[in-house]
Amino acid sequence: MLWIPIDRDSNVSLMKQIYQYVRDQILCGALQVGEKLPSTRGLANHLGVSRNTILDAYEQLIAEGFLITSKGAGTFIAEGTFLERRQKQEINLTKQSKQDTDVIDFRSGIPDLTLFPRKDWAKLSQETWNDAEALTFGYDQPEGRLELREVLSSYLFKTRGVSCRPEQIIITSGATQALTLIAKLLLSPDDHVVIEDPITTDIQTIFQTTGASLYPIHVDEKGINTALLPKHLRPEFVFITPSHQFPLGSTLPIQRRIELIEYVRQKNSYIVEDDYDSEFRFEGLPISSLQGLEEERVIYIGSFSKILSPALRIGYVILPYDLIDHGRELKWFSDLHTPSIDQLVLARFIEGGYLERHILKMKKLYKRRRDVLMEELNKYFSEEITFLGYTTGLHLVVEWKDITFSEQILKRLEEHHVKMYLVEDHSIIKGKHCNRLIIGYGHLHSETIIEGVKRLKDALDGNLSDVGRI
Amino acid sequence: MLWIPIDRDSNVSLMKQIYQYVRDQILCGALQVGEKLPSTRGLANHLGVSRNTILDAYEQLIAEGFLITSKGAGTFIAEGTFLERRQKQEINLTKQSKQDTDVIDFRSGIPDLTLFPRKDWAKLSQETWNDAEALTFGYDQPEGRLELREVLSSYLFKTRGVSCRPEQIIITSGATQALTLIAKLLLSPDDHVVIEDPITTDIQTIFQTTGASLYPIHVDEKGINTALLPKHLRPEFVFITPSHQFPLGSTLPIQRRIELIEYVRQKNSYIVEDDYDSEFRFEGLPISSLQGLEEERVIYIGSFSKILSPALRIGYVILPYDLIDHGRELKWFSDLHTPSIDQLVLARFIEGGYLERHILKMKKLYKRRRDVLMEELNKYFSEEITFLGYTTGLHLVVEWKDITFSEQILKRLEEHHVKMYLVEDHSIIKGKHCNRLIIGYGHLHSETIIEGVKRLKDALDGNLSDVGRI
Repeated sequence: MLWIPIDRDSNVSLMKQIYQYVRDQILCGALQVGEKLPSTRGLANHLGVSRNTILDAYEQLIAEGFLITSKGAGTFIAEGTFLERRQKQEINLTKQSKQDTDVIDFRSGIPDLTLFPRKDWAKLSQETWNDAEALTFGYDQPEGRLELREVLSSYLFKTRGVSCRPEQIIITSGATQALTLIAKLLLSPDDHVVIEDPITTDIQTIFQTTGASLYPIHVDEKGINTALLPKHLRPEFVFITPSHQFPLGSTLPIQRRIELIEYVRQKNSYIVEDDYDSEFRFEGLPISSLQGLEEERVIYIGSFSKILSPALRIGYVILPYDLIDHGRELKWFSDLHTPSIDQLVLARFIEGGYLERHILKMKKLYKRRRDVLMEELNKYFSEEITFLGYTTGLHLVVEWKDITFSEQILKRLEEHHVKMYLVEDHSIIKGKHCNRLIIGYGHLHSETIIEGVKRLKDALDGNLSDVGRI
Repeated sequence: MLWIPIDRDSNVSLMKQIYQYVRDQILCGALQVGEKLPSTRGLANHLGVSRNTILDAYEQLIAEGFLITSKGAGTFIAEGTFLERRQKQEINLTKQSKQDTDVIDFRSGIPDLTLFPRKDWAKLSQETWNDAEALTFGYDQPEGRLELREVLSSYLFKTRGVSCRPEQIIITSGATQALTLIAKLLLSPDDHVVIEDPITTDIQTIFQTTGASLYPIHVDEKGINTALLPKHLRPEFVFITPSHQFPLGSTLPIQRRIELIEYVRQKNSYIVEDDYDSEFRFEGLPISSLQGLEEERVIYIGSFSKILSPALRIGYVILPYDLIDHGRELKWFSDLHTPSIDQLVLARFIEGGYLERHILKMKKLYKRRRDVLMEELNKYFSEEITFLGYTTGLHLVVEWKDITFSEQILKRLEEHHVKMYLVEDHSIIKGKHCNRLIIGYGHLHSETIIEGVKRLKDALDGNLSDVGRI
């Protein structure tokens, strides 16, 4: 219903106020040509004025040409009544650069969205909205739905060796919120975080925003190098991605896992285990979580962004008992809780076996795509490259013997309509990963991968001396 | 020969059972560093499984670092694989007090959840999951779906006189996240917030968490008393709930609105307008949003918790242009964005006219319930009470002439199986609202309201001198 501001203390008559308002709205285009106005009776009720007042205002607008009536159909905004407003003070917004639709973008961390199991999800979603208890539509507890936490605790035990009770889980709006929550939970200015280097820049930002300092530790082919753990300081926690280090892709061996646990036991601090990409392991069994080895000193983070869809925004954090109460409180003051019905749909999706089937199917597909990618890269560059972190996940890293990648080379790639990403962009101590590219393949069809690698070849061909070949 | 318990009826694969058993035995020290494992052929015979099963299990254990092979010599337990187990300690969790199911709870701010339009929502939800573009299942922009922001900007213009473009809107996970975002956007330690007193305690907490100080201003029957705005300090913003002040329920008149705008223009600060409960106005005209009067100095907050369902966790904040970029960034580092499909369903719900119909229906219902509540209260207490803030919303406030409400009186109410709430709990400067109760009625049937007021009467009957009657 059309809303009109009225000032009863004004010496302007109600009719004139209504007339003027509607006129202004038409002139500025807020009421658009062809739009239907409410009936005089309806508008009069809505605004609490007499119907005659509205009739008078409409009549005036009709007489001046702003409105037209069509017998039986109602009253409409007439054509030719829009007057462009003068320029308001405009502030430039960060615009998204226009997408080059022909570009092949090897961005990492994107699942194949076309295969999201939409039919199943739509069905479960409809069922859940229809049969949920009315109370479910109300405010919930900050930790989220018990139904989901129960299903999750048994699912994670089976698939990841995670050992927790449902009350240790807080459902979050994706892994990002879990990270933000942990930062608030444990970090103050002057605190320290021991962290893998390189590591996703967004994660660095989230921790640094609290005023804490990062203590970067070099990641080698086995993951974080535990020999370099600092003895002289006490970090609040050590942040690791042990299943599939991002970006380098290493899987942390048991010796280093145990060293880390012994380290945080001795320092009386925590390990934050971001179980990134663990589900898509192409060879052998998925590696069990660190959390299963040490429940009291490991905070475990997971999300459904890679295995289902980032748009769901559902993740979780598993907390040791002594952090639960504070964690719940922080979630409450962030956004009370994560949407309830979405959680129930996900619980049904896991319980009904849909998730495991989906992961199985996607794993096969991603493995095929990875194989194509490696084959194609080998075809052109076999003498020049080494693969890193290719056993798991949606991306791998390629190391070149004699190319130092720079923004200039990336630009040349873009001129050839192909996009790849620098490991170096995620490094804290700069200069160690300049010959490495992150290549995400999960979301790309085989033919696209083949074409993309060909474009890479073309871009790198010829004289690169001007842009960085050593 | 190593004995491994195998369960052939289990749905865990034999390989995984063997892997897991050996792994656990190594970790706990039952299999010790340097110990030699049986040959794959020998163990396969011994356990009656295929040799490949053993090979796969060994390979996995080698990959994870538990075992090492020495050519010709065999397979051994690797070093650094023993982890000392700690005794688990059980910590008591804050348990929810057991719900008294017979109690009539006049809690405020809860819509009638049984009337959530679940059939319509379920249908739109299924449709949206089925026909959304695949890209919608991927990562989105922090500000949320354009579809919803467009619908919202025209809906809010029509219904609330809010004047904004879609790019000024950030979709948030409820009003709480909008408040948290504003706190992060504008507040640092030593900053000041001018705020209504009394005001929801959660909002006080969110602002104070940043280290900023609250400058409380008394709320009278017209809302925040603008004559008391501080001249000597510059607040970052003035926080108000002008449509239906929480908890007192006043509606801010235009004169005070204009004074506030002049104040923040002069101070070069902002108004944060929480348009709480504005939709359910039972008497008189809808009051214009402040935002519509001054776009560049008013930050506007709204949510769908009261008009639809708190479980959706969808709200929004409308920012002046110069705050948009920073606001988007803060949303990104909180949880990237709000779930995408939920936003699309809501956009269709508004666009299809479902929301307006739902509000109309609920408004009639809530008005009826309010009338019953006031009638019943008048029946027992007419000489002793005054109503405040009853023209709008899901609750009202009752002021008693001669009762000072205390925890003791509330306890007596609970003994009579009825719960009401103290205005005083939300006051910053204490002692001014001790004779006032907040009574929420939106979620209660008429018969329940009638019974609840009777219980209140019983509880307050007789000698109250011991618990606070003055």
